[in-house]
Amino acid sequence: MTNPTAAMLVIGDEILSGRTRDSNMNHLAKVLTDAGIDLCEARVVSDDQPAIVAAVQALSAAYDHVFTSGGIGPTHDDITADAVAAAFDVPIDVRDDARALLQAHYDRAGTTLNDARLRMARVPDGATLIDNPVSTAPGFTLGNVNVMAGVPAVFEAMVASVVSKLAHGAPLLSQSWRVMRGEGDVAAPLAQVAQDFPELSLGSYPFQKDGVYGTNLVVRGRDASQVDAAMAQLQALFPV
Amino acid sequence: MTNPTAAMLVIGDEILSGRTRDSNMNHLAKVLTDAGIDLCEARVVSDDQPAIVAAVQALSAAYDHVFTSGGIGPTHDDITADAVAAAFDVPIDVRDDARALLQAHYDRAGTTLNDARLRMARVPDGATLIDNPVSTAPGFTLGNVNVMAGVPAVFEAMVASVVSKLAHGAPLLSQSWRVMRGEGDVAAPLAQVAQDFPELSLGSYPFQKDGVYGTNLVVRGRDASQVDAAMAQLQALFPV
Repeated sequence: MTNPTAAMLVIGDEILSGRTRDSNMNHLAKVLTDAGIDLCEARVVSDDQPAIVAAVQALSAAYDHVFTSGGIGPTHDDITADAVAAAFDVPIDVRDDARALLQAHYDRAGTTLNDARLRMARVPDGATLIDNPVSTAPGFTLGNVNVMAGVPAVFEAMVASVVSKLAHGAPLLSQSWRVMRGEGDVAAPLAQVAQDFPELSLGSYPFQKDGVYGTNLVVRGRDASQVDAAMAQLQALFPV
Repeated sequence: MTNPTAAMLVIGDEILSGRTRDSNMNHLAKVLTDAGIDLCEARVVSDDQPAIVAAVQALSAAYDHVFTSGGIGPTHDDITADAVAAAFDVPIDVRDDARALLQAHYDRAGTTLNDARLRMARVPDGATLIDNPVSTAPGFTLGNVNVMAGVPAVFEAMVASVVSKLAHGAPLLSQSWRVMRGEGDVAAPLAQVAQDFPELSLGSYPFQKDGVYGTNLVVRGRDASQVDAAMAQLQALFPV
């Protein structure tokens, strides 16, 4: 049985200009790994409607699930909802249930639900809302595309809610082994172990700190007994 | 005059599994912004040849420059050089100048240049080498694709070397203004200023810390007098 596949789409000029360092990709990667959903690709595009539409269409067609982050706030450069509607060629407008959520939220805060804030109630036809326990303005799921906020606290809450409802696969298991030798020394034996376990993914990550260098060997896979067996081979090849 | 365009391709299972947090994208974004080269898109793919080939071909065709990070080490999962050669349909083999660099480096270190390490001298036909002042094993440029290491210290040194040789555009200037009001309040005036300055990009980034909330307004553009004028309008609309 193969695992469900996923892609992420990060939307925002501020990431591509270097002003903001994205942290949502790493968070989503960890959550999906634990859920047995394979994150196969990630893209970052700017606040540009044709770029968002093209990426949503490509990723939505290629993977089981797509997760977007960013561009669903109240300002003029928040165009993700409209771009996703365009990608699926469905109408978009302010929706009553989303408006009611915002109205109640701003009533409690003593703030006016003005036109800008009302933009956050724009939801494409046929979408279901994603709960936002942090700041109310909802995300939404349209087809296989989950549209979420860029603010990390909100993104993380929305991811938890969405992923809990998806079918999970076999979680990716991982074991690592720290070897005090350079990558060039471990490469040949490592390649042999990789060949012996074609179902597993074996990686090597060099480190160097304070004049000490070595390599972290990582075995990843879905079958615990295979991961154990490959790790035992590596430990025999590279004893402490 | 329009600026040169660029895309980044991050290659590595460890990023998509969440084991490693990529930092190269943010570094490249800042360097390109300063150089007046527009980073328009970034992608992350796994250590999978067809995925790398498809991404290299798509990005190479769409942008002036492509920068890749990761997958050029000595181990079996380092397949970027071969994938880039395949993407351009050119042969790849160990090249004498790259081999000489490695031989001298490992001679100095008293280490053997074994088959695994020799993989790092594999260079596609027609490529030029990118200097690696940190650990010698070179990157390379083939067509408009610059292939660099994933280790941040090496990546950053290679980026400095590559970008210094590229034609620069007008650097993206940026000014920001901190407003102690929510995004929903600043959205309408901000949109008006954005409309008045169609050449500029105006962004808003909400923050909330210790019960205090507000919005950072950011004006980005290439024309200093326009950036100044837009910022003056924002400051008049939202005085301290």
